[in-house]
Amino acid sequence: MKDVFDYVDQHGPECVRELQAFLRQPSISAQGKGVAEAAKMVERMFSSLGAKVEVFRAEGAAPLVAAEIRGDGERALLFYNHYDVQPPEPLDRWEHEPFGAEIDGGRLYARGVADNKGDLVARIKAVEALLEVRGRLPVTVKFVAEGEEEIGSPGLDRYAKEHPEAFSADACIWETGGRDEEGRLELTLGCKGLCYAHIEVEGGSYDLHSSLAAVVPNPAWRLLWALNSLKNEKEEILIPGFYDDIRQPGPGEAELVESLPSSPERLAKSLGVERFVLGLAGKDALKRLCFEPTCNVCGLSAGYEGPGSKTVLPSKAMAKIDMRLVPDQRPDDIARKFEDHLRASGFDDLRVTWLGAEHPARTDPNARIVRVVRDAVVELYRKEPSLHPTSAGTGPMYQVAAQFGTPAVGIGIGNVASRVHGPDENVNVSDFLEGIKCMALVLERFAG
Amino acid sequence: MKDVFDYVDQHGPECVRELQAFLRQPSISAQGKGVAEAAKMVERMFSSLGAKVEVFRAEGAAPLVAAEIRGDGERALLFYNHYDVQPPEPLDRWEHEPFGAEIDGGRLYARGVADNKGDLVARIKAVEALLEVRGRLPVTVKFVAEGEEEIGSPGLDRYAKEHPEAFSADACIWETGGRDEEGRLELTLGCKGLCYAHIEVEGGSYDLHSSLAAVVPNPAWRLLWALNSLKNEKEEILIPGFYDDIRQPGPGEAELVESLPSSPERLAKSLGVERFVLGLAGKDALKRLCFEPTCNVCGLSAGYEGPGSKTVLPSKAMAKIDMRLVPDQRPDDIARKFEDHLRASGFDDLRVTWLGAEHPARTDPNARIVRVVRDAVVELYRKEPSLHPTSAGTGPMYQVAAQFGTPAVGIGIGNVASRVHGPDENVNVSDFLEGIKCMALVLERFAG
Repeated sequence: MKDVFDYVDQHGPECVRELQAFLRQPSISAQGKGVAEAAKMVERMFSSLGAKVEVFRAEGAAPLVAAEIRGDGERALLFYNHYDVQPPEPLDRWEHEPFGAEIDGGRLYARGVADNKGDLVARIKAVEALLEVRGRLPVTVKFVAEGEEEIGSPGLDRYAKEHPEAFSADACIWETGGRDEEGRLELTLGCKGLCYAHIEVEGGSYDLHSSLAAVVPNPAWRLLWALNSLKNEKEEILIPGFYDDIRQPGPGEAELVESLPSSPERLAKSLGVERFVLGLAGKDALKRLCFEPTCNVCGLSAGYEGPGSKTVLPSKAMAKIDMRLVPDQRPDDIARKFEDHLRASGFDDLRVTWLGAEHPARTDPNARIVRVVRDAVVELYRKEPSLHPTSAGTGPMYQVAAQFGTPAVGIGIGNVASRVHGPDENVNVSDFLEGIKCMALVLERFAG
Repeated sequence: MKDVFDYVDQHGPECVRELQAFLRQPSISAQGKGVAEAAKMVERMFSSLGAKVEVFRAEGAAPLVAAEIRGDGERALLFYNHYDVQPPEPLDRWEHEPFGAEIDGGRLYARGVADNKGDLVARIKAVEALLEVRGRLPVTVKFVAEGEEEIGSPGLDRYAKEHPEAFSADACIWETGGRDEEGRLELTLGCKGLCYAHIEVEGGSYDLHSSLAAVVPNPAWRLLWALNSLKNEKEEILIPGFYDDIRQPGPGEAELVESLPSSPERLAKSLGVERFVLGLAGKDALKRLCFEPTCNVCGLSAGYEGPGSKTVLPSKAMAKIDMRLVPDQRPDDIARKFEDHLRASGFDDLRVTWLGAEHPARTDPNARIVRVVRDAVVELYRKEPSLHPTSAGTGPMYQVAAQFGTPAVGIGIGNVASRVHGPDENVNVSDFLEGIKCMALVLERFAG
């Protein structure tokens, strides 16, 4: 592969510039900002590879950009990525412009660089390198790049059902990943599912003088009491039936966690966190991160949030809650149980809107693609990667891969300080360039 | 009093213009905006009466503007007012400019017009009318106008202790009041006390990816659980000892509530509220409003509060809580019990800052000033006022009056639709002009 790697080394600056241009285009699906423009850029990048590009559209959904480049042999590898990003807020916590794509101290800073634009461009550049140097690909390559991953991929299931040929492959390289605290690449074999609830409670027609609190119901208290009924201080989720369908991790999966080198303590330190919930440490914390579902408060808002004191009784209160699901929890079932629980607890004054739903998924650790990727990493980086039975995060691995029986492996160019979803999201420029080589090598080795 | 009332009728437009100029000067104590400028305006208004004016200053406190005009006889009447206002937020809920002082359909709209700039100007104009028409006052008049009432009058107690002569009087006319749903004036004989807590919980050093929620403690959950431990769904405040020092209302006070004509149901409707807490109605709701302390959430904030979904684990969470106190609860004691309770419940990770403290106070319903004001109201408006043993709101009646043994009666120019502390705060222009006459009559009748 020296020829291909040399090509990547020679064209590195050009690859970085192309990534920067892509990063400077905001594509915030939650706020509907720049999504169509980013889709256009993806379409152009795929076209420049000479791929057969199809842009699928559905009403109310961001476009799905799919591409296919025929290669040698019968095997097909699917790259799943997304071109949308999380909102950059809170803006005042960024030291670099969220859409400036500035390079500082060897790091490239931008919203979405680690999740997931950097990986998408690295994969495109890997295909380009193989095509430019060899004139052909060792396997057929497919790309699907969606624009709604960060809001739970609401349109993706429909795209997958209507255009299964765009998704069909022998294996799938999942969107993202990165290095752990010791620089070791982490491969992930699954995704958690998700249920995302936006909750509102309404009270008076405007914020009232708080002297009325003796008699007027306070929507913020209603919300607080309702949320309190969802999870207790022991971190037990109290929604009846929430844990019913959880499949215990298989021996292969549990062993993977046992063999993981990660130090959750170092992770905590890098996040500025002093301790884990329930006093957990070491492998116990890792197991919980992999195999336990969550019920998390993403946001709260009510009444006066400014400086100093203002004595009001809020006219409304809002909470955003996400629940990460593990196999075989189903998002529709969990959403129903959530609403049933609120109703049964007397909180029928809460208005719940579901903003996202994802099935959990896991790949069999013994699938061929897992070995191929692991071997490629060892060959390139001379360091054993760690194999995670699942990401703690969510992605539409069920719609893209699991529902078609396609095994999927997550790998990417991020690292433990990449601040995914946070301010100053970043990657090392060198990891981006190595990532291009790694993807080219995976394609070569996947051919067999 | 026809001569004085005629003067008011002739000079009405001029009085309104002077009030509008005062309203156009923001004076938001919670945000430190315009307070010094407003104090200057008050000083000028007092000086124009020919009063002996003193501006007391203390470090970190807004100036207290005091004035005295000697009158006939030995009696002295003190007017207590404040020149600061609540923050106008949320701005998008106003249909009129908060500091525009626009007149629309006979109503004058501005932050602070009902609470309390309209009353302060009405009283100044009453004194002016008596002086202009009669050349002298029937009693000595004192004014104290403070600039921090809306943030709990933190500097007032010190001013009162250092300058007791500015406060000493035979009776006090309290800052504010208004008409009930049937246009009947309400006189109030007391104020609730207050404890205002700003609470913060910190977590990671930035908003984290919510996939970490399985192991990283969420400050929003910590806050929710802590707040939940303060009050239950039966509206019972759970802070140990919170109710210990409550003095049962005297027979005179309880009877006042029984004789009140107010319809809490109509009040609820005007506020856009469907029901009261605990299903209370009629006199039971009124009694609770008068005699029960509160624990109210004024504001909540954490994580992502924008549109759509963002999956974060907030780095911090904030709540603002006010507790309205009744005699003989003491704010310092309640604050201590609040903190002790949080600590004892394991919430020592919450940082509590106290932004306000007030003692509760009540005037004896049999005090002479109560009869004088009631009689003046009947004489002017030909309608019996209603007598409330206390306002449900808070004011520094303890520091200004009760601690010196001065009986105080609240009366003012607002009405049930004045939206005190809310958007589109307003008064009827006619009530402002009648209020000038009423205050002149009270001064005349107080002379004996």
